Amino acid sequence: MTIKLETESSWASHGGTLSVHTHDSAVCNCSMRFAVYTPPQASIRKVPVLWYLSGLTCSWANVMEKSGLQAAAAKHGIMVVAPDTSPRGDTVADDDAYDLGQGAGFYLSATQAPWSAHFKMDKYITEELQSIVGSSFEADMSSQGITGHSMGGHGALTLHLKNPDLYQSVSAFSPITSPTQVPWGQKAFTHYLGDDQSNWQQYDALELIKLKASAATMLIDTGTSDQFLEEQLKPELFKTTCEQHKQALNYRMQPDYDHSYYFIASFIAEHIEHHANVLNA
Amino acid sequence: MTIKLETESSWASHGGTLSVHTHDSAVCNCSMRFAVYTPPQASIRKVPVLWYLSGLTCSWANVMEKSGLQAAAAKHGIMVVAPDTSPRGDTVADDDAYDLGQGAGFYLSATQAPWSAHFKMDKYITEELQSIVGSSFEADMSSQGITGHSMGGHGALTLHLKNPDLYQSVSAFSPITSPTQVPWGQKAFTHYLGDDQSNWQQYDALELIKLKASAATMLIDTGTSDQFLEEQLKPELFKTTCEQHKQALNYRMQPDYDHSYYFIASFIAEHIEHHANVLNA
Repeated sequence: MTIKLETESSWASHGGTLSVHTHDSAVCNCSMRFAVYTPPQASIRKVPVLWYLSGLTCSWANVMEKSGLQAAAAKHGIMVVAPDTSPRGDTVADDDAYDLGQGAGFYLSATQAPWSAHFKMDKYITEELQSIVGSSFEADMSSQGITGHSMGGHGALTLHLKNPDLYQSVSAFSPITSPTQVPWGQKAFTHYLGDDQSNWQQYDALELIKLKASAATMLIDTGTSDQFLEEQLKPELFKTTCEQHKQALNYRMQPDYDHSYYFIASFIAEHIEHHANVLNA
Repeated sequence: MTIKLETESSWASHGGTLSVHTHDSAVCNCSMRFAVYTPPQASIRKVPVLWYLSGLTCSWANVMEKSGLQAAAAKHGIMVVAPDTSPRGDTVADDDAYDLGQGAGFYLSATQAPWSAHFKMDKYITEELQSIVGSSFEADMSSQGITGHSMGGHGALTLHLKNPDLYQSVSAFSPITSPTQVPWGQKAFTHYLGDDQSNWQQYDALELIKLKASAATMLIDTGTSDQFLEEQLKPELFKTTCEQHKQALNYRMQPDYDHSYYFIASFIAEHIEHHANVLNA
């Protein structure tokens, strides 16, 4: 298959390049957009790849504009790919709520109409975008990590747990770790996957760890002043499950930080170092 | 005078705090908004202050959200204050163009109606905000630097040159250095200051250097792919004048960079280090 990749924008950034691309997606059956930060080291060798999955309402832009990740990615020679959070466009189903439809793909393959026509973000990221990034950028596809924020933290943990050989390192910011037990996940899964909750567990990090822990050490940061902490994030549930099932975990509660990109910006360098320690080894 | 300062927002950031404030301004005769990044060191001592003046259309938010300055400010123990780029509000004169009126204050005191009722950004920053920051934050007002971007680079250079003892260090990103000779400056100065060009020179960095060079070394970065380079920025004019008048200058043309915050983010750490070397000495 020949991939036709359009470059929408490109900026010099920390000695490397930030670029934004669109392409026709066979998996999502619509045009998709993603961003890549290519560090300076990629001009002389293929570099490891870190995937950053964003949260509800976000696109590639939030993390690339607001996290400051380019500084640490340039320092460690890590490429960062930021997919969109869902299919988008006039032909794609949507909902007025911020937590369903466009901008709220939840990194799963929807089985229920109208969502099933386009919403296949897990397959899109782990298969189609793998192929595109591997063929279009100076990416060492044998060396990949994955991280994300909130809904994207859920995505990072679940995609890692289901593909531990593909993503050898994993981390997350303020992740939804037990979506089947919290309102955001219950609403999304009902719409995307239907009422039969036995179909939900494959997209719940906590349930996946019960099946099989990964060999990676998970680095997670969540703020103690996160406005979604008690209702949606529930770190204690995840910590207990990891302990019971021998999942190596470094879950850090960061005093006074909230759910914003100011929080992510404060710790992104440590996350990229965490991934670099595995991927550059 | 008792200052009533409202805190609109506050976020934990890199071990310190980013906060946004409003207050009634006697100088601008309306409510004004500004942001402060307070580094962790301010919990034990007063810290030097770096002023960041933003460019056309910007507010406090662009630099605080997109430059990543907090990392370097926290490292060096520098407080950063980001004023707005003009008075704002329903009672404040405005223009449909992006380069005149609200968001385009040009860091001067307007003498022409309708602008003269509120547009006094130089006096606001060098007098009123000095007093507010000094009394409300753990700021060492004897140790201050100033920087900015584009129109804000013009502001930083001119306010430094007119107040070299107040701002002991200075730098700029893609600054307008000769506003009296370029379209942005000529348009703004005509509206704000009138047709008599003899009143314009006090707001032109190049003209101020001809009168008296400062003792500071100016650090300036501009991208070679800056879309405003030839028409509005004209680095050669400034470099020649600095050389002729013995103004110490480190003017760096950065290959491939443009006018965006991706450019600023790439070099903000070096600028903050430049200021810290003077202010922490």
